[in-house]
Amino acid sequence: MKSLPLSRVYQLLEPGPVVLLATASKGRANVMTMSWHMMVDFEPPLVACVVSDNNYSFAALKVVKQCVIAIPALELASKVVRIGNCSGRDVQKFQKFGLRALRGSLVAAPLIADCFANLECKVIDTHLVSRFNLFVLEVIKAWIDPGQRAVKTIHHHGHGRFVVDGRAITLRSRMP
Amino acid sequence: MKSLPLSRVYQLLEPGPVVLLATASKGRANVMTMSWHMMVDFEPPLVACVVSDNNYSFAALKVVKQCVIAIPALELASKVVRIGNCSGRDVQKFQKFGLRALRGSLVAAPLIADCFANLECKVIDTHLVSRFNLFVLEVIKAWIDPGQRAVKTIHHHGHGRFVVDGRAITLRSRMP
Repeated sequence: MKSLPLSRVYQLLEPGPVVLLATASKGRANVMTMSWHMMVDFEPPLVACVVSDNNYSFAALKVVKQCVIAIPALELASKVVRIGNCSGRDVQKFQKFGLRALRGSLVAAPLIADCFANLECKVIDTHLVSRFNLFVLEVIKAWIDPGQRAVKTIHHHGHGRFVVDGRAITLRSRMP
Repeated sequence: MKSLPLSRVYQLLEPGPVVLLATASKGRANVMTMSWHMMVDFEPPLVACVVSDNNYSFAALKVVKQCVIAIPALELASKVVRIGNCSGRDVQKFQKFGLRALRGSLVAAPLIADCFANLECKVIDTHLVSRFNLFVLEVIKAWIDPGQRAVKTIHHHGHGRFVVDGRAITLRSRMP
C-alpha cells in the first residue's frame, strides 16, 4: 500500500462506490458493506456516512470512534455482497471471507489488503447519530494499492443489482 | 412525468450519480450541480447533501427550506458541467441552458423536465449546516420520466473526469 495525498480522497468517494467499513472493538475486527456515504469537505477530507443501529458495527463506531473505509474493485463484488448479508454478531467476517487485514498507521481498525484503497478515519461529529445514525468522519491517512490499476467499482441499485463503472469521459470544468 | 413510489427513491441516489439541485427564492429559480449527497433512510426517503455556503443556492436552501433534486442522464453531461461552472449570482441558468422547468406539486422549486427523475424535497434538519454546510432533506414526492429508459448516469472523479454507468450485474442479496 502506498500513501495517497489526502487532497485526492474525494476522487475516490464522490463517485459513489460501494465500500467496506472496517472497525475494531475489544480486539476484534469486523467489516460491513456500505453505500450510504458522501464527501463533506476536500481537505482535510471529511466524509459523512449512515451506519444503522441495527448493524453490529454501529456500537464499535460509536464507542471507539475510528474506522477504515476500504474500497473494493469489481473482482470482490460477490464477496462484498456476502459480507453485507451477514452480521459480525454471528460471524468472524475477516476469517470467513478470507480478507487480509493489515495494521493501520493511526487507527485500531484494520486496513483490507484486498481493496485498492483504504482510508483511516476518526469520528469527528456525532450530533446526528441519535436522530439519523449519521456520523461525520475525518480521513486522517489514505492508502492506495499501486498493484491494482484501472479498477472498476460497483454502485448499488438495490436488491442485488449493481452497475459497474463503464467508460470515462472528460469535459472541460473549472471545478476540482 | 410519472409518480414514482417513495420506497424506490434510494435506488436512484444510492449509486452516486451527479445530480442537479433546483431552488426557488423570491420568485427566481436557480440550479446547481452536486455530487455530495447520500441516502439517510429508505421511507420516507431521507437524503443528506452538502451545499457550500459559497454557492448561490445555499441561501435559498437555508431560507426557503425546499428544493428539487433532478437526475440527469449522460446526454446532459456537457450541460451539467457548464451549469456547475457558473453561478446564479451572475446568470439566469434555466434560460441560459434552455432547461425546461415544470411546476412541482409540493414545493416552489421547479422540476427539470430534461432530467429522467425529479425529487421534491423539504429540509428537515439543519443542525450541521453551520459546521459542515450539511442539510438533511426529506423527499416528499418523486417523479420519473417514462420516456427515458435504460438511462446511464455520470459519476464525478474530479477535474472534469466522469465515469459513465457501464453494465449491470445481479448478485444474490438479502438486502433491499
